[in-house]
Amino acid sequence: MKEILLSNTDRAEVLAHALPYIQRFQSKTVVIKYGGNAMINEDLKAAVIRDIILLSCVGIRVVLVHGGGPEIEGMLRALGKESRFVRGLRYTDEDTMDVVQMILCGKVNKDIAARIQQAGGRALGLSGIDGGLFQARRFRPDGEDLGLVGEIEAVDAAFLNALLDSGVIPVISPVALGTGEDAGRPLNINADSAAAQIACVLKAEKLVLMTDVQGILRDIKDPNSLIKAINRSEVAALKQDGIVTKGMLPKVDCCTLALDGGVSRTHIIDGRLPHAVLVELFTDEGIGTMIVND
Amino acid sequence: MKEILLSNTDRAEVLAHALPYIQRFQSKTVVIKYGGNAMINEDLKAAVIRDIILLSCVGIRVVLVHGGGPEIEGMLRALGKESRFVRGLRYTDEDTMDVVQMILCGKVNKDIAARIQQAGGRALGLSGIDGGLFQARRFRPDGEDLGLVGEIEAVDAAFLNALLDSGVIPVISPVALGTGEDAGRPLNINADSAAAQIACVLKAEKLVLMTDVQGILRDIKDPNSLIKAINRSEVAALKQDGIVTKGMLPKVDCCTLALDGGVSRTHIIDGRLPHAVLVELFTDEGIGTMIVND
Amino acid sequence: MKEILLSNTDRAEVLAHALPYIQRFQSKTVVIKYGGNAMINEDLKAAVIRDIILLSCVGIRVVLVHGGGPEIEGMLRALGKESRFVRGLRYTDEDTMDVVQMILCGKVNKDIAARIQQAGGRALGLSGIDGGLFQARRFRPDGEDLGLVGEIEAVDAAFLNALLDSGVIPVISPVALGTGEDAGRPLNINADSAAAQIACVLKAEKLVLMTDVQGILRDIKDPNSLIKAINRSEVAALKQDGIVTKGMLPKVDCCTLALDGGVSRTHIIDGRLPHAVLVELFTDEGIGTMIVND
Amino acid sequence: MKEILLSNTDRAEVLAHALPYIQRFQSKTVVIKYGGNAMINEDLKAAVIRDIILLSCVGIRVVLVHGGGPEIEGMLRALGKESRFVRGLRYTDEDTMDVVQMILCGKVNKDIAARIQQAGGRALGLSGIDGGLFQARRFRPDGEDLGLVGEIEAVDAAFLNALLDSGVIPVISPVALGTGEDAGRPLNINADSAAAQIACVLKAEKLVLMTDVQGILRDIKDPNSLIKAINRSEVAALKQDGIVTKGMLPKVDCCTLALDGGVSRTHIIDGRLPHAVLVELFTDEGIGTMIVND
Amino acid sequence: MKEILLSNTDRAEVLAHALPYIQRFQSKTVVIKYGGNAMINEDLKAAVIRDIILLSCVGIRVVLVHGGGPEIEGMLRALGKESRFVRGLRYTDEDTMDVVQMILCGKVNKDIAARIQQAGGRALGLSGIDGGLFQARRFRPDGEDLGLVGEIEAVDAAFLNALLDSGVIPVISPVALGTGEDAGRPLNINADSAAAQIACVLKAEKLVLMTDVQGILRDIKDPNSLIKAINRSEVAALKQDGIVTKGMLPKVDCCTLALDGGVSRTHIIDGRLPHAVLVELFTDEGIGTMIVND
Amino acid sequence: MKEILLSNTDRAEVLAHALPYIQRFQSKTVVIKYGGNAMINEDLKAAVIRDIILLSCVGIRVVLVHGGGPEIEGMLRALGKESRFVRGLRYTDEDTMDVVQMILCGKVNKDIAARIQQAGGRALGLSGIDGGLFQARRFRPDGEDLGLVGEIEAVDAAFLNALLDSGVIPVISPVALGTGEDAGRPLNINADSAAAQIACVLKAEKLVLMTDVQGILRDIKDPNSLIKAINRSEVAALKQDGIVTKGMLPKVDCCTLALDGGVSRTHIIDGRLPHAVLVELFTDEGIGTMIVND
Repeated sequence: MKEILLSNTDRAEVLAHALPYIQRFQSKTVVIKYGGNAMINEDLKAAVIRDIILLSCVGIRVVLVHGGGPEIEGMLRALGKESRFVRGLRYTDEDTMDVVQMILCGKVNKDIAARIQQAGGRALGLSGIDGGLFQARRFRPDGEDLGLVGEIEAVDAAFLNALLDSGVIPVISPVALGTGEDAGRPLNINADSAAAQIACVLKAEKLVLMTDVQGILRDIKDPNSLIKAINRSEVAALKQDGIVTKGMLPKVDCCTLALDGGVSRTHIIDGRLPHAVLVELFTDEGIGTMIVND
Repeated sequence: MKEILLSNTDRAEVLAHALPYIQRFQSKTVVIKYGGNAMINEDLKAAVIRDIILLSCVGIRVVLVHGGGPEIEGMLRALGKESRFVRGLRYTDEDTMDVVQMILCGKVNKDIAARIQQAGGRALGLSGIDGGLFQARRFRPDGEDLGLVGEIEAVDAAFLNALLDSGVIPVISPVALGTGEDAGRPLNINADSAAAQIACVLKAEKLVLMTDVQGILRDIKDPNSLIKAINRSEVAALKQDGIVTKGMLPKVDCCTLALDGGVSRTHIIDGRLPHAVLVELFTDEGIGTMIVND
Repeated sequence: MKEILLSNTDRAEVLAHALPYIQRFQSKTVVIKYGGNAMINEDLKAAVIRDIILLSCVGIRVVLVHGGGPEIEGMLRALGKESRFVRGLRYTDEDTMDVVQMILCGKVNKDIAARIQQAGGRALGLSGIDGGLFQARRFRPDGEDLGLVGEIEAVDAAFLNALLDSGVIPVISPVALGTGEDAGRPLNINADSAAAQIACVLKAEKLVLMTDVQGILRDIKDPNSLIKAINRSEVAALKQDGIVTKGMLPKVDCCTLALDGGVSRTHIIDGRLPHAVLVELFTDEGIGTMIVND
Repeated sequence: MKEILLSNTDRAEVLAHALPYIQRFQSKTVVIKYGGNAMINEDLKAAVIRDIILLSCVGIRVVLVHGGGPEIEGMLRALGKESRFVRGLRYTDEDTMDVVQMILCGKVNKDIAARIQQAGGRALGLSGIDGGLFQARRFRPDGEDLGLVGEIEAVDAAFLNALLDSGVIPVISPVALGTGEDAGRPLNINADSAAAQIACVLKAEKLVLMTDVQGILRDIKDPNSLIKAINRSEVAALKQDGIVTKGMLPKVDCCTLALDGGVSRTHIIDGRLPHAVLVELFTDEGIGTMIVND
Repeated sequence: MKEILLSNTDRAEVLAHALPYIQRFQSKTVVIKYGGNAMINEDLKAAVIRDIILLSCVGIRVVLVHGGGPEIEGMLRALGKESRFVRGLRYTDEDTMDVVQMILCGKVNKDIAARIQQAGGRALGLSGIDGGLFQARRFRPDGEDLGLVGEIEAVDAAFLNALLDSGVIPVISPVALGTGEDAGRPLNINADSAAAQIACVLKAEKLVLMTDVQGILRDIKDPNSLIKAINRSEVAALKQDGIVTKGMLPKVDCCTLALDGGVSRTHIIDGRLPHAVLVELFTDEGIGTMIVND
Repeated sequence: MKEILLSNTDRAEVLAHALPYIQRFQSKTVVIKYGGNAMINEDLKAAVIRDIILLSCVGIRVVLVHGGGPEIEGMLRALGKESRFVRGLRYTDEDTMDVVQMILCGKVNKDIAARIQQAGGRALGLSGIDGGLFQARRFRPDGEDLGLVGEIEAVDAAFLNALLDSGVIPVISPVALGTGEDAGRPLNINADSAAAQIACVLKAEKLVLMTDVQGILRDIKDPNSLIKAINRSEVAALKQDGIVTKGMLPKVDCCTLALDGGVSRTHIIDGRLPHAVLVELFTDEGIGTMIVND
């Protein structure tokens, strides 16, 4: 932890300044997609975990959804598994799905749960399979076959709310059981999209997507061109103008999906900054780009 | 509120540093005797109220006991009521008791409750009469008659715990109904001592007495001689050596009473410093003098 | 207590006769404005307290709202405070409000709570400030400035119901926190009107206003001209005919406000008669004037 | 109902006098054996039912145990069934047991339940069979075979308490399932003794046995020789002196059994007097004979 | 119990086959009218009781309603009571009603409760009188006076659900208190019809009527002509064609009443076959005739 | 599923025979170590899952603990990881632990949860890390270093009981967080021993260890020499006589540990037989070897 040189009274003053933010979010639900650099860099990892527990301690209902791309990548390589790509997306065959499930549910999920427990929080690592948390069907964008990739049909909100009521932080791997012809078969779900769907059924106050970029830049080459806040209705224009670029597109779509589903505010934040989540929730300026309903 | 110049990330870092203290005290009970200058100076008042609500927001069970000496003094003067003193203590006749009750339960208690409510907390202003919270008998030190001054025989812990469980901050006036020959008669209770008794029945983590002095000074003329921490067993020696002086004596006795009754730690802090309570709970150095069991 | 000479069997018969009344009101809410002579005369006071506890013992949910006019009067005089009158109503400046708050919340409220506790009941003395029970705004009849006089905007019914569920008798001082430009400022509320508003939000079975008159007399000079019962729709005519006279007017208005807000029956009773409340609830004839919806 | 001529205010005064008695017994359990003339005379029946509901209304937990001797008698005669007597006690063969069960559980129990329901109370008619309320074994006094007569081994207190908590008045037929070699066979239990056993497991405040006599008379021929109260320790002497006579003996034994089992007070009262139960509970003099622990 | 010769593994396989049926009915309500031969033949009786407990053990909410025709018949004869018939139905005068009540509530009800308790279940024997379970009025088909015969106006569903929630099997005698001019008077209710009404208010999954016939036969002389399933809409035609004959008519009417009231499926089954209820619930073929909504 | 040819009535009879077993185990806890062939053979897998759900459906509280040796083996091989052996036990270095965690928590655990969900049960897949379910320390038999192998110090019984109360089947991977110098580090726990420890803290009725052998054979070459039941006290002799051989030794030790910790009965059963668990619980003969306290 970085040492900030302040008198104890000034420290107390800083804490006292946080009160209105705590009051605003207490008993509210915040769904955080945890991913990118913040899941790799050891210092950032420690900071995120402490932030999450702090939010939980001040009475915010936090749900954590995680991805695990790089670790899946690494394992596939270690196993000598060659990847096939469809429209630039990796095709998920059965062997790949096995690896996805092992890495997400067995490695990443338990590592996060272990860190939260170790830091004094109470975390429950779950997948969308457990207790039937998710129901999913195959995801076939424009009819394209991506293999065992799914999209969520239903989330069991009552189950998550019961966990949150008991003071637990749910840590969720985006793997789901299929229905219909895929009944009983695990499907691979995009983590941002799982977070958005959860935020919808919980009528969350905030959806926070941690990324490795600053947010939406008006000019991708100019770091000073960050768009701090836009309305839901302005999104279409930004897309047309090519400002929401390729990597950012699905994240923005998750935000609009959440907004349309009843979430109050959505945020694309820069997980490379220490305590990005705390800064977002506990300062007026926030961080990254916020998309809100009009 | 004083403005501390810090980047948002540094602010977040300061908050993150508070986590272990929040975790240590969460779900624990802290009884605070609120009095002295911190109840008169408008800035200090505002700071104390915010501190109290912050503690409550992070899950600490706070009970506030208040005095009201100066305001009682003022009203007696306004009514032209002359005071009689016994051994240097004001004799509480029926008229005086009426004023005590009006000022404590009607003025000070409601003012504090109003401030907490206004700042977004949830406070319930009570006296020891309400719901039979206290039972008291006459207090006659060395057989001396002080009039309608009482000492507490019993506190209804279940009642306070029910309030705390429901998220309320109890704000308590130290007035109690007498028993036996004083049955049904309101008695005037010393606020420090009421706080200590409440701390005992609630098995509080901390008893905090706010005063207008730095704490116990080894040399009363040397502000650098503050005793930061002493053991319960060292108190007797300090008394013999004349270090615990007249005004401090009853406060120290309240602390030892609380320690003997199962309270973990007791504190005599300097309420003239802003955010004294936060500094005490949320920094390692603390503030004022701490008395603990050996 | 008056001794009624009856055999034990006849006493039992009288009790048995009360059964249908008890059954009718059990689990129902009755809001009583306690005031006037019944709050001054020592015998009447004792009788009212016993009646209240009896109602509570047989399962009626009793809420007590009290005034305190004469005691406020006395204190203002003792403090040499001169009163200014607007349209015959006392203007409530800050000093006066201080006295109102002290007398109502500190003196009268605690005296009633003490008496109920002493007689074996369980009372909680509250003001509209505590727990945010009331929200109020300035009351400016016809735009006239009366100073810190308020009218209730909202009552926290859930809070009162939780107290009633736990078997407590709430004793309420009509002082409230203002909102908007008066945010955080205590306002003085008329007790009859506070009782009526509480009765509305609790959907009370009865609103009972204790007065120092027999009820509404058709001919104010003829004590035999008491109107025992009238319909809501007849009130306008009585006003036009000058039968509802000046002092009675606001009380009748409180009754019609309560009826319009869902209260079943409203009563203006003569608090100078011993056990007036019991007679009203537990006999067919009742007492005073009843106003009911058509 | 008898009409008592009293002003409404005097009626209210009588009610107010009942308050301390109500307070004394509120939330306490009273077990009443209902039998004899009070179960036959139509006026007494109506009065008992009203008394029972009144007790329940004021928060007393009432359990009613009934007998049914005369009606069993009548049915056996109607069926031409001849009785065999052993030591003066009727031998209960299978046919007799059938009649006992039908009359107690089918006739008397439902008649009492119907009357309580009709008068606005809430009664549940049960036997010791239902829910396994009683467990019993054969009763063989001095090894004598009485047929299907049982004595209680166990009572399910939790079951009764759940009913009482929900505001129901349990009305209980003293029929039980046997255990061991009589497993699954209904046995006939003495009603006084069932009431005493229930009072024990519920740690009742009072056991009240309604009889057709005044109570224990020191001289059976002198109605003025009623013993109003005796201690548990005096019972043996009264037996030796022949004052506790034959019919009274088992009732007194039930009382001492209950006292030894933790019941506070036991009463043998004269059910021929109207409102005998109310008089017993709600006056200082009480009625009949009280036997208490020393 | 009949011994089926099977290896333990095959036994286990049979149990495992029952799983989908258990899953289908778990937490669902099944109302069973228990009557006819299955209530007389000792082997069938034992089998029914075991079936009922098994259903309860696997989480099905079972309500049992019983009749008692033959036993009432027998007692009337034993008492030399002559019966009067109206349109082929027995007229229920007061003496007959007394016998009905005694036999149903006192004999049959307690015998069933005793058997269930003895076999390890938990049964509560009730009548429609207890706790005000039923409200009824006189039943006068085509204005004909049948004496104290009633039809149900209301069933207290909350009461039954509370019993079912606590794991109890309610065993219900079809006797009810009248209302209006029959207030407080027990009325005799047809058991099939009581079962149908209960099934309606509980929104039962199934209503099962146990009879002494195979079900509805297309040709009453041909046991191979059993109608296994018909729709609600086909019933009228069957009646017109004379296929639903006299004895079957009221049973079919109970089924259609239940279907119209929200019950999912209704069954007229042959109680003369061992384990008829289990076969109905736990096999695909079922047993008897099922009537369902279209 | 195998088809057993039986009439529906005979099927019902078989079900009815299961009643006493269901009654005996209802609301009791059974901890099952699921492993070996029954986790590999597809038919056996399906049968085990159905058995588990059936047990849960009839009210038995089932906890499932699984291993995953062969799949861990396979993955290590696929990754080209060479194993080091200490005293015949595989040394668990960090890379191996990673694989253990991925396979157990990510692959096997979720596969079992998916199958239970798919078959209509409700399963929650957990590791000992989640919610701090297990606390463990390094396991060093005779001081030997086995790397990241742990033994359980504590199990959170309240957490498991809360899950069981809500009708969930906990499926548990034997991975735990270390304490002390291994704080925050995942440790590999033997599955049999985890099952035994869980059975102890839950005071389970049964501990069932599924193996690939018949049970304990008196003569390992003679399949007819199965020991069906032995007492705790006989175990020592069997060990001395060399009858409890190497592979069986740790399983027997788990059983005795469980017995000493308050478990009623322990079983080593042959998971290669279909429905082995059902046969064990629902027949008198049981299956495999039972070890019980004397």
